[in-house]
Order: sequence, then C-alpha cells, then structure tokens
Amino acid sequence: MITAENVVGLVVGEGCFYVESCPDSRYRLGWRIRPAFCIEMRAEEEGVLEVVRDLLGCGSVYHLDFGRYSGYEKRGWLPHVKYRVTRRRDLDQRVVPFFRQYPLFGRKAVAFEHFAKLVEILTAGLHRTPKGLDLAKEVADRLREHNRRGLLLGERTGTKT
Amino acid sequence: MITAENVVGLVVGEGCFYVESCPDSRYRLGWRIRPAFCIEMRAEEEGVLEVVRDLLGCGSVYHLDFGRYSGYEKRGWLPHVKYRVTRRRDLDQRVVPFFRQYPLFGRKAVAFEHFAKLVEILTAGLHRTPKGLDLAKEVADRLREHNRRGLLLGERTGTKT
Repeated sequence: MITAENVVGLVVGEGCFYVESCPDSRYRLGWRIRPAFCIEMRAEEEGVLEVVRDLLGCGSVYHLDFGRYSGYEKRGWLPHVKYRVTRRRDLDQRVVPFFRQYPLFGRKAVAFEHFAKLVEILTAGLHRTPKGLDLAKEVADRLREHNRRGLLLGERTGTKT
Repeated sequence: MITAENVVGLVVGEGCFYVESCPDSRYRLGWRIRPAFCIEMRAEEEGVLEVVRDLLGCGSVYHLDFGRYSGYEKRGWLPHVKYRVTRRRDLDQRVVPFFRQYPLFGRKAVAFEHFAKLVEILTAGLHRTPKGLDLAKEVADRLREHNRRGLLLGERTGTKT
C-alpha cells in the first residue's frame, strides 16, 4: 500500500512544481502563466504513479516518447512515464490541499509555497489585471528561479533524464 | 516534521540499497561482500538527511567531495551530501526492520528484498562456508543486476549526479 505520506516523500525526491510563464498573444494581456505539478519515473513504475493519481484524485499518467525523450532508446535512455496535473481547478482543489494536509519538507517545500501562492493568484483571477499579472509573473519567476538553482549541469544540458 | 512514511517515499525516489561483492585477499575465503544503504541529496538537504539518520537511529551524513565528485564545481555540479549505513549490525537491527515496518513500493521494494536476504545471510554467518558464500554472492549479484537495470546511460557514464 502506498500512503499519502509516502507520496510526500516521493515528491520530495522526484516531484516537480513548475510553471510556464511566457509571452502568448492568445492571452488577453499577452502573457501565459500555467502552473503544473508532475512526477516522472521509469516506465516500470507506472503502477506507482497510478496510485499517486488515485490518491490525489486528479491528473493523468502517460508514457514519454516525445520532446526531450524522442529517440531516447538510441541515446541509451530507458522509457519513462509521467504523472501530471495541469488543470487549474485540480491544482487548487486537489494538489494544494493535499500538500497542506501532508506537508512536504526540504527544498521542495519552498517550491510548493511559491506554487501554491501562484495557484491562489490565478484562481482568484488577479492575473486578469496588469497589476495582478505582474504579481503572478513575480511569483512565477521566484518558482522558476528556485527550481533552476535546483538543477545540475547534466539536467541543464539535457543529459540527465 | 518528517515521518517514517515520508522517509519511505524519499527512499523510493532517492535511496539506494547496494552491495560491494568482489575478490579481497584480506577476507578468509578471498571474497568481500559488503551491503550498504544510502540516500544522496543536494547539500542544502543536509537537515533532511539528519532527520532520516535520527529516525533510523544509525548511519552518518557526510559531504561528498571526493571520488566521482572530485572537482564537481568545475564540472558544473552542485555539492551533495550523503546519508549512509554500512555497519552490518545497524543494517540488520535498524534499517531492515524499519522498512519491514514501513514498507517500500515499486522497484525499490524488490531491491530491498534482495538486500534484506543478503543481510540475513551475513548476519547468520552463512558466508563463512564456501557454500554459504556462493549463496551470498548469488543474492548480491541479483541485487546488483536489479540496480544496474535501474541505471540510465547518463548514470553509467557519470554525467548524472
């Protein structure tokens, strides 16, 4: 059995709270901010991620065979599977409350605080005004900066999966 | 607070049950078999690993600045810290019972079963006879093979930390 507290430990090791924050003309103020939560593991661990999905009650599990994984076999990488939540309502009503109830620890707890703040801003719709958008961008930058400092050279250059 | 079940999840992501099994003339039958358990994280997570050490009641936490980490800064890697248990009595009386009480999951649970079997064999002193040593070698090989299949190319070639 995988418990909620097990999931917390797994997320400290393997989970990622991240955000896309970039210009996008399809958005009213010309800027897109999309937070997401994911855990990536070896393909054999699909069952583990399915339990995580069920415990969190949202998101989906899918196999990676595109993007930086395209042709991974040729590069000697093993197949991976990803659990991801992007739907804002799920982030607000499932993911954030889950990690409030079962707290994270270490650096990941800091990433989560930026993430939760961002989800709160977006859920309240504050980003629809220029001033609120600036605030959202600022929090998004803080989260990205935190995650960036967490990356190793291998990851930056794509040699780590 | 970091709970025992949190530690389990962290170990599924970041922990390693491994074994040295190789010829060594200092040993009676000319072979050394030394199981060990470790978790490696970024240096900032030292506090996390100290809590893990206290929860398990054994092992030590130390900074990595040697071996494959030598000159890590020049290679763009970040400083790492490692929690490790090598003392057989601690493995037998602390580590194995801990993960019996708070079960692992996924591939790591399989590694743990090989590891626990090996610790049991060594604790019983079976490896002091040629037949028992063969059994211990066999279990050690199974653990190493399991861990090897878990490695990505980046890890094999040392580009992943």
